[in-house]
Formats: sequence, C-alpha cells, structure tokens
Amino acid sequence: MNPFASLDRVRVVMSHTTHPGNIGACARAMKVMGLSRLYLVNPKHFPHDEAVAMSSGATDVLDAAVVCDSLEMALAGTVAQAALTARRREMALPVREVRAAATELATLLAAGSAEVALVFGTESSGLTNEEVAMCSLPVTISTSDTYRSLNVAAAAQIMCHELRTAVASVSPVVAELPDLAPHEGLESLYALIETLMLESGFLDRVNPGRAMPRLRRLFGRAQLESEELHLLMGALKAIGGKRRGG
Amino acid sequence: MNPFASLDRVRVVMSHTTHPGNIGACARAMKVMGLSRLYLVNPKHFPHDEAVAMSSGATDVLDAAVVCDSLEMALAGTVAQAALTARRREMALPVREVRAAATELATLLAAGSAEVALVFGTESSGLTNEEVAMCSLPVTISTSDTYRSLNVAAAAQIMCHELRTAVASVSPVVAELPDLAPHEGLESLYALIETLMLESGFLDRVNPGRAMPRLRRLFGRAQLESEELHLLMGALKAIGGKRRGG
Repeated sequence: MNPFASLDRVRVVMSHTTHPGNIGACARAMKVMGLSRLYLVNPKHFPHDEAVAMSSGATDVLDAAVVCDSLEMALAGTVAQAALTARRREMALPVREVRAAATELATLLAAGSAEVALVFGTESSGLTNEEVAMCSLPVTISTSDTYRSLNVAAAAQIMCHELRTAVASVSPVVAELPDLAPHEGLESLYALIETLMLESGFLDRVNPGRAMPRLRRLFGRAQLESEELHLLMGALKAIGGKRRGG
Repeated sequence: MNPFASLDRVRVVMSHTTHPGNIGACARAMKVMGLSRLYLVNPKHFPHDEAVAMSSGATDVLDAAVVCDSLEMALAGTVAQAALTARRREMALPVREVRAAATELATLLAAGSAEVALVFGTESSGLTNEEVAMCSLPVTISTSDTYRSLNVAAAAQIMCHELRTAVASVSPVVAELPDLAPHEGLESLYALIETLMLESGFLDRVNPGRAMPRLRRLFGRAQLESEELHLLMGALKAIGGKRRGG
C-alpha cells in the first residue's frame, strides 16, 4: 500500500492571505509533497493570475481550493490542527517543534480515517491568538534569532515535507542492498596493490610502513561493491601490468 | 556556545540560476535558517531588482554573494558537498535522503573547522551529471511520483531547515573526526587516475565508458582523508610513472 495515500486526508489552510502569489506557491509546495486539499479563509485576491503563475502547473490544487468565510468552517471535521506560530504567546502554550508535530499528525493519519489540518496565517503578522486557540497543536519552526521572516509558502513547504517524511517512517521500508564484494575479492585487491607498490619502488620491502593498513581501512570503510572491485582490479592490472610487460 | 555558529561554514551554491527572483528567495530561505554564504555559478541575471524584491530584506546575503565561473571554484576548500538531485541515475548512485545527508554534514561541522556546501542546479533541469559527480553526497528530497516540480528556493528552504535541525541535535563530538581531503584534492586524484588509465590503454579515449563515474562514486562515498589521498596519489604516480619513465 502507498504510505502517502493518507496525505489525502490533510488540509492546508491559509487564513487571510494577502498576496495571491503565495497561494500559488503554497499549492506547488503542497502538490510536490503529495498533498492536494487547499482551504482559503477570506483570501484578499482569489482566484488570481499570480496564483496560477506561481503554482507552476499545480492548478488542479487551486481549482479544487475551498474558499471559506471563517477558520471554523475550514477546520470542521478535522481531528487535529497544527497552527504555525512564530511567537511565544503570553499564555505559555505547549508549542511543538515542527518535527514533533509532524510525528503526532502522522500517527493519527496512520491510525484510521481522521482528517488533520496545517494552518497558516496572514503574511504580515501570522495567525491571531484567537486562530491559534482554535487549533490543537501550536507549532513552531526554528529560525535565526535575528531574522525571522519565513515566507508563508516556504513554511508550508517545510511543514508538508516534515509531514511527508513522518508519514513515510510510520510504514516499514524495504531497501535494496548493493551487491558487496566478498572478503576474498578484497584480499586479492590488497595483494595486487601491494605487489604493484613493491615492484614500482613506492614501498620498501624491508620497511613497508603503514600504507597497506591504511588502504585496507579505506576500502573496508567504503564497503566496496563487486562491480567496483572488478573495475579497480582491471584498471590496476592495466596500469601496472603494461609497465612490467613493456 | 551557540550551536548554530557552525552554519557560518556552510555555503549554498546555486549553479546557472535562470530567474533572479529565485536567488532572492534562496537568500531569504538561507537567512531565516541562520545561513549567510551564497555562491552563484554563472547566474543568468545578477545583481537584479527581482532578487532584491524576493529577498525580503536579506540583502546582506545578496551583497556578500560570491559569483563564480565554475562549480569547481565555488566548491574549492569544502570537504563535503551535498548535491540536490531529483532523478535516479542509470548507475544507481547511493543517494541519501535529505535528513541523512543533513546529519552527516552536521557531524562534520561539529567536528572542527571544515566547510561544506549545499549545491542546487538550474531551474529547468537541475544539476548535470557532471556537476553531481563533483559532489560527495547526492541528496534527494522525497516528492510525489506524479508531480516533482520542487522550486529551487523551496528545495534550499528544506535543506537549510534540515541542516539547522540536525546541527541543533548533534551531540558534542567525543571522537575526533578525520581530516577530510578537500574537493580540489579529489579532482586531482580523478585526473591522475584517468590519465593513467588512458595511457595504459585500460580506457579507450573515444569511448571511455563508465569507469570514471564509478570511481568518483566509490571515492566520494569513502569520504577520503587527506592522508589517504596523498598515499593514493603517491602510489599511483609510482606505479604508473615508472612505466612511463622505463
């Protein structure tokens, strides 16, 4: 089963967005992460050409966007709402880092048929206290102390990426392992290198120093694949062997 | 000590950027995450009013941007380079997920004075295979299978966020990390190997095949130390050079 199917149950809610270009950029940010359900609470300009231009082909997300009169309406039916907030509020809310919030949401999504929301405020000042209070998870993204101007579509990009990553790690992943070179193949390689270094005079027979242990360490660490081993053997034989022959 | 101070040793490299607005948006994405060092390889338009407009006050990052003629120049002195790539290549590169790459880079940054780079390609087609081959860590950001149009500044936003998060969570280093070979040292090694393979007839000049990309992949993965680099260069010169001399 596709682990990302649950992203169909995630709404991205933009409240009182001023610049339509940001709506388009957000649609693109969503779609590239596999999200599709955009809700717009009282956008200043929508639909708009700039939204289409900035969406870079994610016009299906814009076309299907739900325009709402209130945040309540946009959140109706969702069981968890992550509200992006840059500020620490007076009421000492338990603000989550974005990664922790993504894990919480992914767990909910994996559990059943619940819908969740990611909520973003207006460009100039973010979500109001009242809007944050309507959401279950106040979320913050760590920024520089001296410059906190995170674009709303960039914030959506980060949150959608974090949620996609969290959703993927809920399911077991089977990774294909490379065909690693066997032990005896590596030994042949070391023997060849040593012979060539001795014959060329690079290594002194009586006092060979630490060159071989170092090379063993290097190739051991690299976890050489069979194909790479054959390539190295062939190249070294050609480079060194011709000298011997000619 | 401020855990984010090490972000001063991170370069963001944009190669052949077409739209100056993306350079400005990238500067903003960097600054909000605490990064400041922007390198531009052959930007189509720079400086430009659109870059300033999209930077939202991060003009100090734009003013200090280093414009380069080549990616080599932008990467000189860095010991690790994360190259954002959307595509699975024919040769099954060991591509890291962005989170794993961020952890690797954060570990390097914590260890000492090393500089690292985050590298982004042109808007239409991303980094070329040659550009990716110059970097030590091919990195991918998981996207939808059906829509992969991740904006370059949005990709930079995600990578800078992941790196900031990783830097914050990296524990103080107990073990000393190795002295890694710089980018230009690795390029010298590749040049030497290629020359030797061509001279020995192992590689065909007209149809060199995939030996060099494979070797780049191997040594990139191995994260060669400076001492190992010198050892390999010395040994190869002896093995190959004697043949030439004699």
